[in-house]
Amino acid sequence: MTTAKVGRPVNHTPSAASPRRAVPASKAVAAPEKTVNGTANSNGGGAKVMIIGGDGYCGWATALHLSARGYKVAIVDNMCRRSFDLQLGLDTLTPITSAHQRVRRWGEISGNHIELMVGDICDFEFLSEAFQSFNPDSVVHFGEQRSAPYSMIDRQHAVFTQHNNVIGTINVLYAIKEFNPDCHLVKLGTMGEYGTPNIDIEEGYITITHNGRTDTLPYPKQGGSFYHLSKVHDSHNIHFATRAWKIACTDLNQGVVYGVRTEETMAHPDLINRYDYDGIFGTALNRFVVQAAVGHPLTIYGKGGQTRGFLDIRDTVRCIQIAIDNPADKGEMRVYNQFTEQFSVNDLARIVGTEGKKLGLNVETVTIPNPRVEAEEHYYNAKCTKLRDLGLEPHFLNEGLIDSLLSFAIEYKDRVDMKLIKPAVDWRKSGVADATSKAAVAV
Amino acid sequence: MTTAKVGRPVNHTPSAASPRRAVPASKAVAAPEKTVNGTANSNGGGAKVMIIGGDGYCGWATALHLSARGYKVAIVDNMCRRSFDLQLGLDTLTPITSAHQRVRRWGEISGNHIELMVGDICDFEFLSEAFQSFNPDSVVHFGEQRSAPYSMIDRQHAVFTQHNNVIGTINVLYAIKEFNPDCHLVKLGTMGEYGTPNIDIEEGYITITHNGRTDTLPYPKQGGSFYHLSKVHDSHNIHFATRAWKIACTDLNQGVVYGVRTEETMAHPDLINRYDYDGIFGTALNRFVVQAAVGHPLTIYGKGGQTRGFLDIRDTVRCIQIAIDNPADKGEMRVYNQFTEQFSVNDLARIVGTEGKKLGLNVETVTIPNPRVEAEEHYYNAKCTKLRDLGLEPHFLNEGLIDSLLSFAIEYKDRVDMKLIKPAVDWRKSGVADATSKAAVAV
Repeated sequence: MTTAKVGRPVNHTPSAASPRRAVPASKAVAAPEKTVNGTANSNGGGAKVMIIGGDGYCGWATALHLSARGYKVAIVDNMCRRSFDLQLGLDTLTPITSAHQRVRRWGEISGNHIELMVGDICDFEFLSEAFQSFNPDSVVHFGEQRSAPYSMIDRQHAVFTQHNNVIGTINVLYAIKEFNPDCHLVKLGTMGEYGTPNIDIEEGYITITHNGRTDTLPYPKQGGSFYHLSKVHDSHNIHFATRAWKIACTDLNQGVVYGVRTEETMAHPDLINRYDYDGIFGTALNRFVVQAAVGHPLTIYGKGGQTRGFLDIRDTVRCIQIAIDNPADKGEMRVYNQFTEQFSVNDLARIVGTEGKKLGLNVETVTIPNPRVEAEEHYYNAKCTKLRDLGLEPHFLNEGLIDSLLSFAIEYKDRVDMKLIKPAVDWRKSGVADATSKAAVAV
Repeated sequence: MTTAKVGRPVNHTPSAASPRRAVPASKAVAAPEKTVNGTANSNGGGAKVMIIGGDGYCGWATALHLSARGYKVAIVDNMCRRSFDLQLGLDTLTPITSAHQRVRRWGEISGNHIELMVGDICDFEFLSEAFQSFNPDSVVHFGEQRSAPYSMIDRQHAVFTQHNNVIGTINVLYAIKEFNPDCHLVKLGTMGEYGTPNIDIEEGYITITHNGRTDTLPYPKQGGSFYHLSKVHDSHNIHFATRAWKIACTDLNQGVVYGVRTEETMAHPDLINRYDYDGIFGTALNRFVVQAAVGHPLTIYGKGGQTRGFLDIRDTVRCIQIAIDNPADKGEMRVYNQFTEQFSVNDLARIVGTEGKKLGLNVETVTIPNPRVEAEEHYYNAKCTKLRDLGLEPHFLNEGLIDSLLSFAIEYKDRVDMKLIKPAVDWRKSGVADATSKAAVAV
């Protein structure tokens, strides 16, 4: 068993070899009619998972996925993602309920209690108390400001992003070291840490032969915004902490996540996940789908050759579970590239056009000046085999686009704020004057 | 002229090709009898240089060196280095005067005014005012917490170090972008960013051929403390800012600096530089020299095979001048490895023993457990040719040890606090409880 050699807590007994196969998906879901109760139809075995940022897009879906499968879940969140919407005048396309209502409703329909701890992990007094009272076996750390445009609004947002993300992660590392050194950290990084090098992107490390000698070193990083850089910094800090303190970490360099649907978030309207389509938090794909739904041309930034890794949120939650069930060794920072397919912006526009046509939508495209500083035509070949080797069975975009995105965009299109679907944060114009009021809306 | 192609300000007209040769060292010094007045015997041509951290060890020597050579110098400093001594009960071996007395005395003996701006660059209101009022042609950024042990005292000191260093540098980048995009940033990094890879260390970048394709990428970084990591983060942030905003930066990955003597700091007792020998701010070499002077065995951490790059402070100040006079192109982060010789800890002990014997000192060594987490026997071969190609003529340790270190240790040995010459910060014990009171003294 993988867990034995790394000193996992005894109550953490996942079927490590092939966790997904051990529990057929049809039995493991949280369909309320089936009364998922945390022991039957699950493989979490009561292992305690703290999900920092568990009220966010990926965090919420992950919290429910794990809770439905027998893990004991605590959400730690300071509600900053909701605050950002308030600051910038944004809103999710889908109508989400409060974090408190979400966990109440989930308890009612699943019988599983999710603990909600509201506070800021940059406040170490709060984090200490949360950590010691819950005493997690695993910490899944989604709790960072995760928008590149947000980090480029102005100096204050750049500073906030790096402070919040870097210091929060240092605090988590110290909490693990001091309060439970056996706790496995599952940290969300981003594929954007790598930038767009002209060589293949490996999973975290690269073996280099140079002047006749060879070493395996951290893959060189070239983040393209203060947000992406904050995750580069985290990776370096975590790498050090795993070596110096012999703690265990899995760093998941995640691609662009899309989709609203997971089985659990669809189990009741109160559990619905957020859908961001604005110029700050919305990804190109999310925006394109909303634009298609409301009859606005898809806005392609520049040449559209920008290529990235993507995955369905139904795969995100499975990847997190796989990472938890196959913990890194003590002293190891294991790195997985967490995505399933690569697309260019032009690819996305083409797929949205094709799928939209099936629903009778007439999809056009328009090229607009790229507000980012990035290569618009470049080589991109990133590896992503490790999670598949551990059992990930991907959902693919051409199968899930209508079901998991277009259907929601059409259902909620009356909620679309047309002012929010254009880019408004220009990398070159990020300045020292406060730009909060105009950040979300192109002027 | 190098300056023309990168759009330097017109009043910045150094002799870029070989600045040191253009002004014989014997004429360029600040020997008070010769009345250095900022125009004669200089090549700075009135170029304005802001030195952040100009009251610190390297910063002070650099400020005087440049002021003596015709640069118009402003020191920006929040006196935090002196505050650290107050916090931890430390003191420099050499009796330094206040920053205010230093610049007053320098003005009297050289006729050159150095502006002193006391404030914190993490306070952007202060930095904006300082930057706009002085309007520098170059910013030399020494203004960071620079001790690895300090950063490892406890969580609070780790967080302080990364916040202070990373946010301060982001603020400097925004100040340049917004207030004077032609200003050249000369940023002090550290050789410690690279760690101890098993391949040769190049100057900032490495060309990698992988799966049949080739790219030149940032050299992989493996910092060995939260301090070293803060400079890794700076390098990544600066690399992004140079590309996104087309600003010019030279990142100097400096080795371990030693020596008290520069021509200007020796020109009057009020100008003397600091000499740190304690377990927090003192380097192994500085400690060894003090231990030799007071008859204490040299304390070797572990096996003593730890190898690093070193340079004399007389070379530091020349390297900074060379970097200023040969600015990076706009959009470029130029990286130099700033050291002149490599030594292991055992090498240092041997040299101190040999040189000490010439002064009649009986030098013994003792091995103590290594408080750091680091390789104690490793390959180390770092390149440092670029600054030499630009005219650096090194001082070597075996020539300067007695003159620039041992003589001071002997002169001031009555000021040595024996409690401070042992290591007290253990990388493995860095915790969440405040450890300020015991950090400086082994318990």
